[in-house]
Amino acid sequence: MREKVTVCEVGPRDGLQMAKSRMQTEIKSAWIAAMAGAGLPEIEVGSFVSPKVIPQMADTDIVVRAAVKLQGVIIVALAPNLRGAQNAYEAGAHRVSVPVSVSEGHSRANLNRSPAEQVAEVARVVEWVRAQPRQMEIEAACSTAFGCSIDGAVPTAAVLTVANGLAAAGVDMVTLADTVGYAHPAQIRDVVRAVQAEIGSKLDGLHLHDTMGLGIANALAGLEVGVRNFDAALAGLGGCPFAPGASGNIVTEDLVFMLESMGFDTGIDLDKLLACRRYLAEGLPNEGLHGGLAQAGIPKTFRVAA
Amino acid sequence: MREKVTVCEVGPRDGLQMAKSRMQTEIKSAWIAAMAGAGLPEIEVGSFVSPKVIPQMADTDIVVRAAVKLQGVIIVALAPNLRGAQNAYEAGAHRVSVPVSVSEGHSRANLNRSPAEQVAEVARVVEWVRAQPRQMEIEAACSTAFGCSIDGAVPTAAVLTVANGLAAAGVDMVTLADTVGYAHPAQIRDVVRAVQAEIGSKLDGLHLHDTMGLGIANALAGLEVGVRNFDAALAGLGGCPFAPGASGNIVTEDLVFMLESMGFDTGIDLDKLLACRRYLAEGLPNEGLHGGLAQAGIPKTFRVAA
Repeated sequence: MREKVTVCEVGPRDGLQMAKSRMQTEIKSAWIAAMAGAGLPEIEVGSFVSPKVIPQMADTDIVVRAAVKLQGVIIVALAPNLRGAQNAYEAGAHRVSVPVSVSEGHSRANLNRSPAEQVAEVARVVEWVRAQPRQMEIEAACSTAFGCSIDGAVPTAAVLTVANGLAAAGVDMVTLADTVGYAHPAQIRDVVRAVQAEIGSKLDGLHLHDTMGLGIANALAGLEVGVRNFDAALAGLGGCPFAPGASGNIVTEDLVFMLESMGFDTGIDLDKLLACRRYLAEGLPNEGLHGGLAQAGIPKTFRVAA
Repeated sequence: MREKVTVCEVGPRDGLQMAKSRMQTEIKSAWIAAMAGAGLPEIEVGSFVSPKVIPQMADTDIVVRAAVKLQGVIIVALAPNLRGAQNAYEAGAHRVSVPVSVSEGHSRANLNRSPAEQVAEVARVVEWVRAQPRQMEIEAACSTAFGCSIDGAVPTAAVLTVANGLAAAGVDMVTLADTVGYAHPAQIRDVVRAVQAEIGSKLDGLHLHDTMGLGIANALAGLEVGVRNFDAALAGLGGCPFAPGASGNIVTEDLVFMLESMGFDTGIDLDKLLACRRYLAEGLPNEGLHGGLAQAGIPKTFRVAA
């Protein structure tokens, strides 16, 4: 019996919002369906934000309504505030993910609120969702938990303050995000352990970027301290607005290859996963696609015991 | 007092031998000097092989003779046999690195000998070198220790047989090479521990490729089981003859960034290291240069305690 690790595909949200071009809704939905068919257990399909700010997300309502009809996959939608969460609920999302920046600078730039004000907004989301007839999971994602391109180093104490506030607000799960990709493995271990000591298993996942080439190593470090849920994006989509040319989220294919090679069970079919890249080639013809496995092919040693 | 980790730059050897074009000798020597100036403690500068087989290495004798005049850097030359080792000695190399494939298929294809025959060749190298007036370190590099593109999975028992044979032959150090980049972190830990149990601290280093995107994670796994010496190539030069388009060796810049971020002392100046990429842009204009750090820049959190 292999131990399970959950991979959440965030390409349709975190990947596309940084893309140079806009993926057509039909291709986006076909891509999401193909990812579900490859065995992805969770997919973050869009965000309920103003289309004026992020035009790539203008079709999120349509995309969520289509995606929740797929079988066996948890459909996540990002919402920065109560109104977005209400839209996610109305569209039928299984889970809403609310970002909370740990650093003041990123919080102001991204949400126009202080971290404490955003924690209070999350509490309002929790209160509203819990009063609805349908259950919807509430995840809070702690952005810039490992460093901020505006504020620089982020004290662990600030991460703990936000994590404790979110746990007290009653969210179902908290994830830590290396939004700009500044983290290193020792830091991942230290911060994860510190947050686990405060909120226990409410700390559910890591969201990692590969900006400095350390993304997969950081996932390994998280795995070693008990994290069993990782965000990733097909072909490493995502970029970083503060690092032109840098790759984005950690590459789903490479992460899954590592996890399965190490004996973990992701439930994902690697061949089918790799085949999903055609939707990116078709829908985002100007985007650079990353990933070692896709270029080299699945090695003949995969899942062969030595 | 930070713990030391040694990074050996292998770009001028493992990187260039796969390059589409041939770097001019003057640029190669200037690049090597700049790397030494950036604090690289060890540089593998070429290999004494037939120029008919690898024309990019035809100037190795000139390159070694120039490099050994640099201060404070150990100059390594690869030699596949006694004759090559004699050439390395004559040129003044501080260390000769002799490859020994663990897998039969790679050994036959690369060296036209069985692994056992190549271990015997290493013994001849040791005997000859020890009889010379000047000391030259002898390293044996176990190729395909984590998998082979010809033979597939490589049994740990085969690695142990070769490692024990090399230790018995009297080499100064043994390194394990993931020649084709098939390794995953759990395998790195298992094989390294098994070899350490047999030959102890004679196991000195890891040579990793980033074919599947796991190279830096594999370095982290090695670090965790006590490895303190890693080969890497500037800009991830190297490619893999069996994986077109795949990146090559692990990226020196990203590895050094990770190590220094984690509190290890590499003795390398990251700014000067990044500046060395200009020799690649100049000397190998058609080569793709990899690396997260080079694209994103050194983050403002580098070496700032949180």
